[in-house]
Amino acid sequence: MTEYPTALGASSLEKITLLGQDLAQDVMGKVSFGELAFWLATQRRPAPGETRVFEAVLAALADHGFTPTAIVTRLTYLSAPDSVQGALAAGLLGGGSRFLGVTEDCGRFLHEAVSTVEEPANWDEVALETVQARRAAGKFVPGLGHHVHKNGDPRTARLFEIAREEQQFGPHLALFEAIGRVHPQVLGKTLPLNGAGACGAALADLGLPLELLRGFALLARTAGLIGQLAEELRNPVANDIFLSVDLNNRPVPPAGGSHG
Amino acid sequence: MTEYPTALGASSLEKITLLGQDLAQDVMGKVSFGELAFWLATQRRPAPGETRVFEAVLAALADHGFTPTAIVTRLTYLSAPDSVQGALAAGLLGGGSRFLGVTEDCGRFLHEAVSTVEEPANWDEVALETVQARRAAGKFVPGLGHHVHKNGDPRTARLFEIAREEQQFGPHLALFEAIGRVHPQVLGKTLPLNGAGACGAALADLGLPLELLRGFALLARTAGLIGQLAEELRNPVANDIFLSVDLNNRPVPPAGGSHG
Amino acid sequence: MTEYPTALGASSLEKITLLGQDLAQDVMGKVSFGELAFWLATQRRPAPGETRVFEAVLAALADHGFTPTAIVTRLTYLSAPDSVQGALAAGLLGGGSRFLGVTEDCGRFLHEAVSTVEEPANWDEVALETVQARRAAGKFVPGLGHHVHKNGDPRTARLFEIAREEQQFGPHLALFEAIGRVHPQVLGKTLPLNGAGACGAALADLGLPLELLRGFALLARTAGLIGQLAEELRNPVANDIFLSVDLNNRPVPPAGGSHG
Amino acid sequence: MTEYPTALGASSLEKITLLGQDLAQDVMGKVSFGELAFWLATQRRPAPGETRVFEAVLAALADHGFTPTAIVTRLTYLSAPDSVQGALAAGLLGGGSRFLGVTEDCGRFLHEAVSTVEEPANWDEVALETVQARRAAGKFVPGLGHHVHKNGDPRTARLFEIAREEQQFGPHLALFEAIGRVHPQVLGKTLPLNGAGACGAALADLGLPLELLRGFALLARTAGLIGQLAEELRNPVANDIFLSVDLNNRPVPPAGGSHG
Repeated sequence: MTEYPTALGASSLEKITLLGQDLAQDVMGKVSFGELAFWLATQRRPAPGETRVFEAVLAALADHGFTPTAIVTRLTYLSAPDSVQGALAAGLLGGGSRFLGVTEDCGRFLHEAVSTVEEPANWDEVALETVQARRAAGKFVPGLGHHVHKNGDPRTARLFEIAREEQQFGPHLALFEAIGRVHPQVLGKTLPLNGAGACGAALADLGLPLELLRGFALLARTAGLIGQLAEELRNPVANDIFLSVDLNNRPVPPAGGSHG
Repeated sequence: MTEYPTALGASSLEKITLLGQDLAQDVMGKVSFGELAFWLATQRRPAPGETRVFEAVLAALADHGFTPTAIVTRLTYLSAPDSVQGALAAGLLGGGSRFLGVTEDCGRFLHEAVSTVEEPANWDEVALETVQARRAAGKFVPGLGHHVHKNGDPRTARLFEIAREEQQFGPHLALFEAIGRVHPQVLGKTLPLNGAGACGAALADLGLPLELLRGFALLARTAGLIGQLAEELRNPVANDIFLSVDLNNRPVPPAGGSHG
Repeated sequence: MTEYPTALGASSLEKITLLGQDLAQDVMGKVSFGELAFWLATQRRPAPGETRVFEAVLAALADHGFTPTAIVTRLTYLSAPDSVQGALAAGLLGGGSRFLGVTEDCGRFLHEAVSTVEEPANWDEVALETVQARRAAGKFVPGLGHHVHKNGDPRTARLFEIAREEQQFGPHLALFEAIGRVHPQVLGKTLPLNGAGACGAALADLGLPLELLRGFALLARTAGLIGQLAEELRNPVANDIFLSVDLNNRPVPPAGGSHG
Repeated sequence: MTEYPTALGASSLEKITLLGQDLAQDVMGKVSFGELAFWLATQRRPAPGETRVFEAVLAALADHGFTPTAIVTRLTYLSAPDSVQGALAAGLLGGGSRFLGVTEDCGRFLHEAVSTVEEPANWDEVALETVQARRAAGKFVPGLGHHVHKNGDPRTARLFEIAREEQQFGPHLALFEAIGRVHPQVLGKTLPLNGAGACGAALADLGLPLELLRGFALLARTAGLIGQLAEELRNPVANDIFLSVDLNNRPVPPAGGSHG
């Protein structure tokens, strides 16, 4: 008989355990939600400083106003108000490579460079080599540049500060910060270190699984999308968005054709 | 030109605001994730006691082991490892009427009864009338009964305790507790007040939007599903689950037929 | 050992069967996709006339231009171009009670009335009673009314015609047509029988499972959403839609507050 | 004012157009569902032979029994029976790189090779170079190998046959067939050309958009998943699947730890 081992939730007649703890007595009322999310993902309880950095990241990623994901959740709820789970799931499905992916891409990119370095490292040198190699390969440096915050993303400096306060400023953040210093001499222009990239660096320094960094962005965004739905209930805009598209459709003849 | 009002995230060259706050200076590092989720959903900052009850609810709902939602997330990740967002979204889609719906159903049901009552109320009387009316209509009482915790769900008593400690024990919890006392004389048997129902009562007492109570269960579950994925990465079981079904398929002839 | 019976796909070293047929020899090249979808849903092979009505329904429901579901699929693809499955799934999640639900609601509503009638029936009498009962209960009649086609939905008359040509005009369509004749004397105004409702009636007459009528609308819509994505690749509009919302956001102060 | 051009659905008071056609008069009852899906994706009407090949591909991909996607749809419906759209969407989300991705990967891979070749080509030579290059790069050849049909996938030969009958056997299928002939001399073993890969070759020969080849697999699978749900309604197995996992869970201590 196949068995399925797990250290997560389990129930018996009298007791529920989660991560080896008594859920009712030792988790409820004692473990904050951010701490619990960290613990679930790593199966080790974070120190308070780790939780503070982790929750700062979640705050940084929770909501960015009328993003595609927010619009999608509102439109799906308009269309299928019977299914809150569908509206949230639809919004999360936009959490892919373009809008939420920077966090994961940056964390993985930094980790690759960091893994080859022995500490103590001269991070400016590592950063210079890394940016040069990236440029030579014709690839962007993840986490550099922002379409709005051209003079600097306010989340980045603040996350560096919090990580330092909590002694969680590790090699990924150090390398990311160094990239911010050295890239102009390689790229010939100064770009801001964006907040999504800084979040990826911080999550990697916290030892969270790199394959799931996108997952933490999605957790944060779930809270944001619930906020979007709550506002939609109070002050609906989805029908206006729908009509602004539908009423401005312009019929054109079919294209015909095939791939070239 | 149509405008879309929002009090959630907004960005300018130098600054990001969220809920009217400076995101970097006043939210990051200062607001826990549970507190922020509450604030996003209500657009008012919760008191510390409210946050503690809210986070206790999230802990109670985060993970229940190998539920259908957990299995679905693991199988979807097996099948499409390129899309963490798809695996999480697929799991959340199971958060409907049967497995995660009790929280919302119970909150709405209690709210309907509570809305017609003037306080101070004799909750045992209200509970008796409510359960009798429900029975007369041939309907179940939401939040009563549990297939495992037949002698009492340990989360329920603990949530009552935390809500009392924080002065958040309001009319919904009071009515729910009273239903626990009086239902045996109507139904002729004693059923436990389940934890999912208690969570619905607590969320309603916190003033969270009733239409979105299911959403908070889904937020909690998102953290749980990330935990499931992290464990799947470390100790995979999804392929065994898949094979345990596929290898035990038994071909039968098509049924033919139509609805009767 | 638990076994899982199924009449759908099964494979052995040499052969693949589907619905008891040899997939390669007896299905591929011989069974059209519409016919196969019908067969999969009912486990009986439809007659050609049944397939023609079924495919007419699918054509009627495949695409309605810039609906919320189409916008959602395009925005999700903009945001996560790495996941076509996510973009399609997100669009389908809008197929709920409001925009795609009429087909199912109407099929179920008609079936309930039809089940109580012995044939041959005087459908005008049945329709009159049904509409009167609905009105007395303060409920809408599913399938009546359309926000654009106020003088008649062109799909309805055409579907009646095709069903008659194929001898598939059964009691559900008969009752629906009769509702079109008699409702003005009850409601005091003349409303069109909409195409989505007619599709529900036709699917019910074909003996398709009532619990899944929405599923056929979703199957049709999947083809439509692929068309939307193909057009988005050729002539993208999703980024303009996103910007038309984001650039017209108007920050307002948080609402505060709770449910009343 | 931004306008949104489209050649897909549009409505006016009297008329609905789709792809420039009158939906009611010229599409319903005249265009099969497979033909319509092709037309929507390419904006050109396929010839009957193209439709037959396209529908053979859809039949080949519609259902493969208890795949992860089928299990996911059944479990999601068990958990949230209120949302058929959620159950279908959840199943489709498994249509990613591992289980449904071969069709798209193979079509793209063949197209890359085909684009560099002038016809008439010696396909065995092209195939040899292509397989050698792939091997040198340490990569698998998409479409080669099958875990069950080790002596040959019956769908592949049949699809070659149908494509030839309809004069739709183009360069992608020709190269794929040649790979089947020449790969043993490079790889030192004989692998079957799998059906999913053959489908990708056929779809590419039909001129369907390469970015959306996965989409056609998903369209086929939508019909299959509706079949799975219909069977689940008639002969439920999802609860047994769930219990077979949940009852065989084995609690283990938390792992602790971080990425290495």
